[in-house]
Amino acid sequence: MKTINIGLLGCGTVGTGVAKLLIENRQLIQSRVGVPLHLKYVADIDLEKARGLDFQDTILTSDANQVINDPQVDIIIEMIGGETIAKDLILKAIESGRPVITANKALLAKHGHVIFETAHRKGVDLAFEASVGGCMPIIKTIRESLVGNHIKSMIGILNGTCNYILSKITDEGISFQTVLKEAQVEGYAEADPSLDVDGLDTAHKLAILSSLAYGTQINFDDIYIEGISQITPMDIEFAGEFGYRVKLLAIGKDRGNAIEARVHPTMIPFDNLLSNVNGTVNAVTVSGDAVQDILLYGRGAGMMPTASAVISDLADIARNLISGATKRLPLLSFQPDSMRQIPVMSIDDIATHYYFRFFALDRPGVLSKISGSLGNHNISIKSVHQKGRKSNGSVPVVMVTHRAKESDVKQALREIETLDVVSANPLLIRIEDEWQQD
Amino acid sequence: MKTINIGLLGCGTVGTGVAKLLIENRQLIQSRVGVPLHLKYVADIDLEKARGLDFQDTILTSDANQVINDPQVDIIIEMIGGETIAKDLILKAIESGRPVITANKALLAKHGHVIFETAHRKGVDLAFEASVGGCMPIIKTIRESLVGNHIKSMIGILNGTCNYILSKITDEGISFQTVLKEAQVEGYAEADPSLDVDGLDTAHKLAILSSLAYGTQINFDDIYIEGISQITPMDIEFAGEFGYRVKLLAIGKDRGNAIEARVHPTMIPFDNLLSNVNGTVNAVTVSGDAVQDILLYGRGAGMMPTASAVISDLADIARNLISGATKRLPLLSFQPDSMRQIPVMSIDDIATHYYFRFFALDRPGVLSKISGSLGNHNISIKSVHQKGRKSNGSVPVVMVTHRAKESDVKQALREIETLDVVSANPLLIRIEDEWQQD
Repeated sequence: MKTINIGLLGCGTVGTGVAKLLIENRQLIQSRVGVPLHLKYVADIDLEKARGLDFQDTILTSDANQVINDPQVDIIIEMIGGETIAKDLILKAIESGRPVITANKALLAKHGHVIFETAHRKGVDLAFEASVGGCMPIIKTIRESLVGNHIKSMIGILNGTCNYILSKITDEGISFQTVLKEAQVEGYAEADPSLDVDGLDTAHKLAILSSLAYGTQINFDDIYIEGISQITPMDIEFAGEFGYRVKLLAIGKDRGNAIEARVHPTMIPFDNLLSNVNGTVNAVTVSGDAVQDILLYGRGAGMMPTASAVISDLADIARNLISGATKRLPLLSFQPDSMRQIPVMSIDDIATHYYFRFFALDRPGVLSKISGSLGNHNISIKSVHQKGRKSNGSVPVVMVTHRAKESDVKQALREIETLDVVSANPLLIRIEDEWQQD
Repeated sequence: MKTINIGLLGCGTVGTGVAKLLIENRQLIQSRVGVPLHLKYVADIDLEKARGLDFQDTILTSDANQVINDPQVDIIIEMIGGETIAKDLILKAIESGRPVITANKALLAKHGHVIFETAHRKGVDLAFEASVGGCMPIIKTIRESLVGNHIKSMIGILNGTCNYILSKITDEGISFQTVLKEAQVEGYAEADPSLDVDGLDTAHKLAILSSLAYGTQINFDDIYIEGISQITPMDIEFAGEFGYRVKLLAIGKDRGNAIEARVHPTMIPFDNLLSNVNGTVNAVTVSGDAVQDILLYGRGAGMMPTASAVISDLADIARNLISGATKRLPLLSFQPDSMRQIPVMSIDDIATHYYFRFFALDRPGVLSKISGSLGNHNISIKSVHQKGRKSNGSVPVVMVTHRAKESDVKQALREIETLDVVSANPLLIRIEDEWQQD
């Protein structure tokens, strides 16, 4: 094989980054892969972002089908995003026998079943390193490096926007709404931020990682998802007093006959490296029975970091084409006949440590009433702070618990809400206690 | 291919871990690789460490040649260590056309040339993920994930023993010699600790990473190496006052027509994640033109983490055998015809920030003399602390500099040593300023 021809569909931010690397680092990539990777097509209805790139003999087109229909194209890169056109084009490319690279986490999380099934049936490679964690090689690490490990847990900061917002609330003590507005102005958050701040994007990524780690295709709707919009500077300050920072975490755990898959704001101890991962960066800790804990850290988004991950996939697939080794790696890390159906645990069934914040009247006996309710539901308090500052005549009472069951917690909180001394709905933040003993 | 037969040479700590994973995680590995990986032989003169493993039909032998001579063995794993027998056996296995997996960093760093040349000539795979960073997939990351990046720098904590000792000096304020003795008792340091504490082991690993990152086989003797035995609790305390922690770092940098490759105790800022990597753990930051910075973190040694990396190599090579894709990846990350000769810069030619500690008489004018000498050699002081506590009538004077050239620094220090107000040889610790502006 003398040259590998690439068709790039979608030339927005990441697509432009991919084109840029293929053009500007062409020599480097060839010196590592062994043959030229030639950008034969770039398809987009608007090539504004790619202006300034020296495309030379690359064919620019607004017709994605032209790219897929050209039999000389060896590999298709889908950088369009979304769940409609992108899906159709990916399926069409796969059906035509062409390997596909994508970074489309929403599509894979929600429609992965049909895409992976088609790729398996047609015997083509499908690569998606850039769909999770940007340039962090988390997919390669789980799929290849940890091949000898039973993966016990994956705990990650997988959304740069949320991490930026939480870092900023932590550092500057300003409200979620204020920080979000600033982040939108600075380009760190979208005009419609819900995909990020409501935790959906993180959950898409967790769905992909869980499939790879546990050999199961999980139903996206089974993932418990909670965003960061309820987090106040006050809670972050209290967290600090208990020795924790607040992060939006994706948590996946092997629980024997079930897995945990959940996304929510989480308190983690200061001395855990994840708590020191600030700003738009991503990081993930994976625990395996042999490796113990490993951590990867890097830019989870952005033009060039994400493009770097796409090029990594491209080199892998090119090498498979060159050496006739398509299907060398199973698409989802496990051989298809070893994939299993594993249920996702209901959030009600998990057990962890909790932080609660109540607003209560500043009078004697309040703590006794609250702790009485908790005790009735088998929830044991580890530490409590009753604060002096009043808000509408109420003072915040905050506490962290020993390990408790979520369903017990919910019942207790429902009961506490009805107490006449409690003046607002309680807030609950889960504490990640993977690293704790009790 | 129905089964892949493995011959394991050497069953010490890591070899036993490999056997353990192949036996106990057999089902898992098969469900990912697709065929059974069968441990056909274990060769060692002493199988004490592997006692308790259920070897079933594995042939235990004290004759490594028996393993290599059996044509049914598909892959050889060398876990003997050292540079004599291991080298002969690896070369013999390669000559017989068998792919080899090794974790032998000293061998690869010092005799890599002949081994890689032989593997290339015979067209067999050679894998060595476990040689650097234990379970951290740093080799796979550089060789595969960063394929589209010009690697600008690699900065790593690559020796757990040194990091343990430095962490302990930092936390407990006790001397290097005392901590070393404790570490030897606790099994974190060898009876002969020089390979670790003198920086050689770190340099072996840096040699391997530099080859992979820069497409050059560097001469091991060109690496500048300085160990940690001169580091005192006092210097670590002073470092803290300047906002730094002290780590033994491997530093590799692309400097255009040369590379930097050096190992020495280094001060790094508190807010750099590497400064928070404590105990026996390893971590490395890699900067590429596309990814910016990524960081990997994990256990750099130990039975099971290192074995996990060996199994990762094993799966890769098994997949190549299954799909007939041997030589899919170039051994040293670049195609052989793209490897270059790149000189390693002399330590005298580097420029960085420095920490100096002098012992000087506690009298007026001392600082003026010292800073005068520094100024004469173009070294500009950023910050200075003159301490009150006396040691033999002298007080420590510590300072950090702006960026200066090492050769200037050496000349200045030689001059300062001769000053009558300075009572002991100055100590120099380099500051890693990759992340600093001036």
